Amino acid sequence: MIYLDNAASTRVHEKVVDEMLPYFKEQFGNPSSIHKYGRLASMAVQNARKRIATLINAEPKEILLTSGGTESNNTALYGIAYKNKGKHIITSSIEHDAILEPCRRLEEEGFQVTYLPVDKYGLVNPDDVKSAISSDTSLISIMLANNEVGTTEPIKEICEMIHGKNILMHTDAVQAVGKIPIDVKDLDVDLLSISSHKINGPKGIGALYIKDGTKLEPLILGGGQENGLRSGTENVPNIVGFGKACQLTKENMEQNEMYFRKLATKLTSKVLQEIPYVTFNGHPEKRIPNNTHFTFLGVNGEDLIIKLDENGVAASTGSACSVRIQKASHVLKAMGFSHEQITGSLRLTIGISNTEKEIDDTVEILKKVVTELRAVSPYKKKYNF
Amino acid sequence: MIYLDNAASTRVHEKVVDEMLPYFKEQFGNPSSIHKYGRLASMAVQNARKRIATLINAEPKEILLTSGGTESNNTALYGIAYKNKGKHIITSSIEHDAILEPCRRLEEEGFQVTYLPVDKYGLVNPDDVKSAISSDTSLISIMLANNEVGTTEPIKEICEMIHGKNILMHTDAVQAVGKIPIDVKDLDVDLLSISSHKINGPKGIGALYIKDGTKLEPLILGGGQENGLRSGTENVPNIVGFGKACQLTKENMEQNEMYFRKLATKLTSKVLQEIPYVTFNGHPEKRIPNNTHFTFLGVNGEDLIIKLDENGVAASTGSACSVRIQKASHVLKAMGFSHEQITGSLRLTIGISNTEKEIDDTVEILKKVVTELRAVSPYKKKYNF
Repeated sequence: MIYLDNAASTRVHEKVVDEMLPYFKEQFGNPSSIHKYGRLASMAVQNARKRIATLINAEPKEILLTSGGTESNNTALYGIAYKNKGKHIITSSIEHDAILEPCRRLEEEGFQVTYLPVDKYGLVNPDDVKSAISSDTSLISIMLANNEVGTTEPIKEICEMIHGKNILMHTDAVQAVGKIPIDVKDLDVDLLSISSHKINGPKGIGALYIKDGTKLEPLILGGGQENGLRSGTENVPNIVGFGKACQLTKENMEQNEMYFRKLATKLTSKVLQEIPYVTFNGHPEKRIPNNTHFTFLGVNGEDLIIKLDENGVAASTGSACSVRIQKASHVLKAMGFSHEQITGSLRLTIGISNTEKEIDDTVEILKKVVTELRAVSPYKKKYNF
Repeated sequence: MIYLDNAASTRVHEKVVDEMLPYFKEQFGNPSSIHKYGRLASMAVQNARKRIATLINAEPKEILLTSGGTESNNTALYGIAYKNKGKHIITSSIEHDAILEPCRRLEEEGFQVTYLPVDKYGLVNPDDVKSAISSDTSLISIMLANNEVGTTEPIKEICEMIHGKNILMHTDAVQAVGKIPIDVKDLDVDLLSISSHKINGPKGIGALYIKDGTKLEPLILGGGQENGLRSGTENVPNIVGFGKACQLTKENMEQNEMYFRKLATKLTSKVLQEIPYVTFNGHPEKRIPNNTHFTFLGVNGEDLIIKLDENGVAASTGSACSVRIQKASHVLKAMGFSHEQITGSLRLTIGISNTEKEIDDTVEILKKVVTELRAVSPYKKKYNF
């Protein structure tokens, strides 16, 4: 089976699993315990925290460990909203549901949220951010890279613009991390969410970068772990695995980026050349290198996924992160896509284990499957398939 | 090293790790994906959910998967408080911080919380619960077994008393599960928290039993996983491991319970016989079988832990779940213990891997270590050590 759904989740790296294993059966202590088992567990967490921080050029004390990207995003939004006076939040209309849903709840609670539009490539315009800012704005949350179409947003530009203003900047970097280099100091963000299972680490673990000095309300209270910002016994093996995944990601950043780009370029050019009535979506240059997103006119994306699955290719219509509800992509809607364009969308996302041969095979399978589906398409006449 | 801190965390069972492994490197899909990888992951979660439900005699749909006991407790408290009209919550003064801290926040938000007293054994009196109930009471949260002294609370009796009233009952069963049989239908609770890493499962995963029909507000919002009650990509390997741990716990319940009791009884009687000025804490019968809790007069518990550690025994003064803050146990305070009694406390908690020989060895080490510490104790004269 060819796995091209690496934006949904990734295979855990062999070296990551190897590093996690001792923490299940041997060094299984609770990091809060003062005996040897506890100390070993605590040291393992500290070591992992350093590796996570290093990947994004942060300090270890700026890394809050969470149960994943969704919790990181929730913590950032509620944590800042409840701690600050301002009642206005700016976000984009193409954020992940882990941003949009907390924003909707905050609206119910009396906060005002501005959902910025995007252009046809999925790009937020920094001028729109500027216009939306009011004296009541406490937080801006805009993703670093979109999870469906892969477009990267002008976060650095936005940060420069708000510099000196009393507004905090959060970015959901879940899809960007490991695909493009991230430097929190260079970006100048205050908060940044990352997830382990998108970079060949284990599921159920993530982090929120919180710039030193930034105050926020904890989401989960209890024993006071993570400096009181996230209670609950630390998930030591997964933290260790996440740390190792970050180390490997850092080491192989350039190489992976080039490899992703090479495979994605090959896939894109072959698909566009060999299959008619196809468009490539998202920004042509401002994008993460491992994401490809197409619209096959006259084809239902869901049918396409099922057919591809039958033919040995694991793909996605867009986001895997919202449970199988057949709702039209809010991202593509915001980009101005028609119903037909949205319906025919396919996301193929490349991972470190994919090969060139897999890309060639995928194109052949796609050609076959798209032809089959178009033969029975209600749009058959319209396009003269 | 003899590990007698199983209330803090446990060794992950060999069979649990074996069952988890394929979900890291082979079946690493996102359960929300519709292709084969996704379906396999989703089926694994379903299967685990059944096993978790079976352990406590619940239905699979009544199991909400969380990142652990702390998140389960937070979800229960906030989830019910925010969903219901009543603004009064009843709890006990010896709950874990994962209950007490959310209660304190709810108080800040305008809720009224009654913290019930306990007797010298750490027992809540159901009459006190009855007296505390008002027309504004929406939730009662009392633990099934205390994490420090092991006393089990009269949850069934309290549930009978409130039956028919419009009050929900939550119990933190993190320390009870796997130590005594738990049947949510027999107890008649509405919500019950469990944690995986206390029953030889992996860390970072837990569950909240939510009786069918009980409505609550989600703590974490996003993609809508877990029926919208807990968003975020499911931690598949840890869920699978948790499921296996529950299955093993169910299969070995009687046998483990007897084994814990045998070792705890041996440990307790030897300590009380062979070491002077020692008291055994918690209720003599109403207790989980794997917990032993002592006070060694004239000895500082922290020193005792360090000395035991040096001599190859991993133990705890009480709760490991609050980060190394040297604060006096709120549990022992509520039980009416003096400062001296609190200071000299030691918790030894037995796990499935402990042996009789380890118990014998521990008593010998304890005798030696306590004698050494008492030789330099400021209470030396008082007790004529």
